[in-house]
Amino acid sequence: MKRISSLLTDLYQLTMLQGYVEQSMDDIAVFEFFVRKLPRERNFFMAAGLAQVIDYLETIAFARDDLDYLAEDDRFHPDFLRYLANFRFTGDVHAMAEGTLFFPDEPIIRITAPIFQAQLVETRVINILQFQTMIASKAARMTLAAPEKQLVDFGLRRAHGAEAGLFAARASYLAGFNGTSTVLAGKMYGIPVFGTMAHSFIQAHDSETLAFEHFAESQPDNVVLLIDTYDTEKGADKVVALAPRLAEKGIIIKGVRLDSGDMILHAKKVRRILDQGGLTDVHILTSGNLDEYKLAEFSQADAPIDGFGVGTRMTTSADAPYLDCAYKLVEYAGIARRKRSEGKATWPGRKQVFRSFDPHGRMCGDILTLASDELTGTPLVQHVMKQGKRISEQPDVKKSREYAFSQLAGLPDYLIQLDESEKYPVEISRPLAELAQKVDLRSSAEP
Amino acid sequence: MKRISSLLTDLYQLTMLQGYVEQSMDDIAVFEFFVRKLPRERNFFMAAGLAQVIDYLETIAFARDDLDYLAEDDRFHPDFLRYLANFRFTGDVHAMAEGTLFFPDEPIIRITAPIFQAQLVETRVINILQFQTMIASKAARMTLAAPEKQLVDFGLRRAHGAEAGLFAARASYLAGFNGTSTVLAGKMYGIPVFGTMAHSFIQAHDSETLAFEHFAESQPDNVVLLIDTYDTEKGADKVVALAPRLAEKGIIIKGVRLDSGDMILHAKKVRRILDQGGLTDVHILTSGNLDEYKLAEFSQADAPIDGFGVGTRMTTSADAPYLDCAYKLVEYAGIARRKRSEGKATWPGRKQVFRSFDPHGRMCGDILTLASDELTGTPLVQHVMKQGKRISEQPDVKKSREYAFSQLAGLPDYLIQLDESEKYPVEISRPLAELAQKVDLRSSAEP
Repeated sequence: MKRISSLLTDLYQLTMLQGYVEQSMDDIAVFEFFVRKLPRERNFFMAAGLAQVIDYLETIAFARDDLDYLAEDDRFHPDFLRYLANFRFTGDVHAMAEGTLFFPDEPIIRITAPIFQAQLVETRVINILQFQTMIASKAARMTLAAPEKQLVDFGLRRAHGAEAGLFAARASYLAGFNGTSTVLAGKMYGIPVFGTMAHSFIQAHDSETLAFEHFAESQPDNVVLLIDTYDTEKGADKVVALAPRLAEKGIIIKGVRLDSGDMILHAKKVRRILDQGGLTDVHILTSGNLDEYKLAEFSQADAPIDGFGVGTRMTTSADAPYLDCAYKLVEYAGIARRKRSEGKATWPGRKQVFRSFDPHGRMCGDILTLASDELTGTPLVQHVMKQGKRISEQPDVKKSREYAFSQLAGLPDYLIQLDESEKYPVEISRPLAELAQKVDLRSSAEP
Repeated sequence: MKRISSLLTDLYQLTMLQGYVEQSMDDIAVFEFFVRKLPRERNFFMAAGLAQVIDYLETIAFARDDLDYLAEDDRFHPDFLRYLANFRFTGDVHAMAEGTLFFPDEPIIRITAPIFQAQLVETRVINILQFQTMIASKAARMTLAAPEKQLVDFGLRRAHGAEAGLFAARASYLAGFNGTSTVLAGKMYGIPVFGTMAHSFIQAHDSETLAFEHFAESQPDNVVLLIDTYDTEKGADKVVALAPRLAEKGIIIKGVRLDSGDMILHAKKVRRILDQGGLTDVHILTSGNLDEYKLAEFSQADAPIDGFGVGTRMTTSADAPYLDCAYKLVEYAGIARRKRSEGKATWPGRKQVFRSFDPHGRMCGDILTLASDELTGTPLVQHVMKQGKRISEQPDVKKSREYAFSQLAGLPDYLIQLDESEKYPVEISRPLAELAQKVDLRSSAEP
C-alpha cells in the first residue's frame, strides 16, 4: 500500500497542534501506549504493529493537496499551514519488540518528541497498534490451542476493510499462523500464501468430479479439493474414485477441505473413506466459523483434521473486537504528568518493564517502574528510533514470529488455558508509586 | 486513498480463475451478496458501500509489479499472467441503493459477468459491503436512539486499520450521524469534520484554565472545552469564570465535553453550574464508551446532553463485529444454481425484492422473488452498472443520507426498538421456491 495521507487523524490533533504552535509550546513531551485491562477472554497480550508505526513515523508529511484541503477550512491559519508543510517527525521511540507478551498498564511504545509531533501521531499510532496487537493476541490463543496443526488466515472478506485484512494476515502469522490466503499480504510482508477453491467453482461445473479434475489439472502441485458443496461423504467418495485417474497423470491429491456441518463427525467419516480408498496421505482441512474454542474441541475429540482455515472470528477478534487502550502524556517539559479522570487514571513518567523468569525459562512476574530505574530482570522496552530515524533495521515478520514462538514457550501453564486465569503478577515499583502521588499533589494544588 | 492493488484478494480466486481460463469456461455467471441472518442485536440492516464497490469494479486491473509477484509463484502459468495483464471488469451490476433497509436472504447486490470476472471480485466486494453495511446498520440504531442529538464519529483510533476508520466515518454519516472527527474522511467523502481537544492538551499546561484560554484563542469559532481531566465540576466552574474574559475578546464558548465518570450525574451538575453562571447556550457534549443503549439511557434519564462523540463501539460494531453474509453463485451458463451445504443453503436464480408500504408510508412486508417476476410493490434492486461502466453518477453520501433518513422514517415501530423484535415478514415467492426444488432435483441426480 502506498503511504496513507497524513490527514488520517482526528481533527483535534490539528487544532491542538495549531494551539501549541501559536503558543510556541514545543517542549519535549513523552507519550506511552498501553492497554488498561485484559478482556475477560484474554490472559495476555502479544505486541504487534511496531514495524508499521516506525514506517509511519519515518515518512509522515503533509502533501500539497492535503494542505489545500485544510486551507479551505477557516479553522486553520495560513502560518500554521506553512508550518505543517514542513512537518516531520524528529523524535525518539522506545518499544517492546513485536511478539513480546505483555500485560495491562505496561507500555509497549514510548514516543519522545516536541509536543506537537508526539501529539499529532496519536491517532494513527493507536490505530495501528491496537488492531495488530489485538489480532496477534487472539491468534496466539489459536496457536496454543492447535500447536501441531496448520493454521491459515482466511479472514480478508470479513475483515473491516482492506488494511484490517492485511494487518490481520501479518499479525496472525507473527503469532504462529502458517500463512494467509490474502495474496497482497504475501507480496507486502513475505508471508506464505495458501488457497484452494470455492463452492462456486464446483457449482459452475455440471459435475462435482469434473470440477475436481479441472482444478487438479490446473494446480497439479496444489490439489486441495472442497468436498462439502452437496454432500461431504459423497464428495470424499468421488475423491477416492478420481485419485487413480489423476495418479496416471502424475497428479497427487494433497488434501480435501470441509466447510460446513459437524466437523468432527464429517472429518472422522471422511478420514475413514480416504483411508479405505488408500489415500492415507491426503490431509483433511476444515474452515468455517473456527476459533480457539473450536480448535480445542477438535483436539479433545481427536478429530483427524490436519489444518484449519481460520477467518472471521480471528480477523475481527470477534469475542473482544477492541482493546481498552490509550496513548497518554506521561511527561511534558521535564515534568511527569498523569490523567486522573474517573476510572481512567494513568501512571506518570517514562516507564520500563522488567520481567523475571524461573529456572525453566517460564515468565514469573513483571515490575513496572521508571525508565531511570536499574532493576534485575529483562528490560522489555528498547530504544528503536532516534531523532526520527530507526536505529537499526526492524526484524522482518518471519524473524519476529520466531521470537513470538519463544515468548509463547515461556508462558506459565495457567496463562495458556483459554478460560480466564488468575492474573499474571505485575508489580508497581515504589519509585513509580511515589511519583504518582507527587504528581497528584501538584495538580490538586492548582486553583 | 489510492487504488488498492488487485492482489487484495484470496489466492483461491486466482487459482480458480486460472482453472476457468484453461478450461475456456467463460459463460455468464450471476452472483448475489446477501446476509444469512440478523444478529440477535439487530432488527434490520442498512445497505452501504455500493459507491466503493462500483469504484472498485470500474478500475480493477493488475499492475506490472503485481504480475511480477505472481510470476515468482509457479502455481501460475505465463499464459494466464498475460491474460491477467488485460483483465478488466465488463459485467453488469444490480443493487439496492445505499441507505436501503433490508433483511436476511435479500440480495443487496447482483453481479452478472463472465465467471472469471464475477468470481475474482468476490473477496473485495464482500470486504467492502459487509463492513459498511454492518456499520450503517449499527449507527442507524444510534440515530434512532438519539434522534434530536448531534452524533459524531470519534472512532478512527480503535477502528480496525485505516480503511475501517474511513469507511466507518462514511457509513455512520450515511446512517444519520452529523459528521466525523476523521479529517481524511472529510476530504474523501465531503463529510463534516468535528473536533475539540484531548486531555494531553490540558495536561501539557500548568493550569487547566490557561489551557482553555490558549485553545479558545486559537479556535475562536469552535470553542469546545474538555473539562474532565482532573475534576469535572471544578472544570465547569473554571469555564464559568473564564467566559467573561473570553467574551471581552469576542470569543463565545460553544460547548464543554465530558469523557469519563457517571455522565448523567455529571451532565446534570455541569448544566446547573453553566446555567447559574449565565452560560445557558453552552452545549454539553459527551464521549467515552457510548453505544445505542447508553444513548437510550441518557434520553430516558433526561440527561441534559446535546451531542455525543461515538467511537469504538460503533466503529467496530462491537456487539456484532461481523455479519453472516455471503456472495453466492445463483446462475451459471443460463442455469440456476444453489449451494446446499448443511446450514448454508442459498436461494437460486437472479432475484428481486418487492416491498409494500401501509397507507402511512410504513414498510409492511417484502417478497423475495425472481428478477423476471413482475409483482406489485417497490422493486429495491436496480440496474447500476452496464458492461463495466456505471449507468449514472452515484449519489454522493449526503444525498444517500437523505434517502437513509426517509428509509428510517418508514420503519414500523416494532423494528425501532433496540431489543430483539418480532421478525419483519419476508415472503419467498412461489416461483422462487419452485426453482429451488428444481435445482435440488437436478444436482441430486448427479452420480
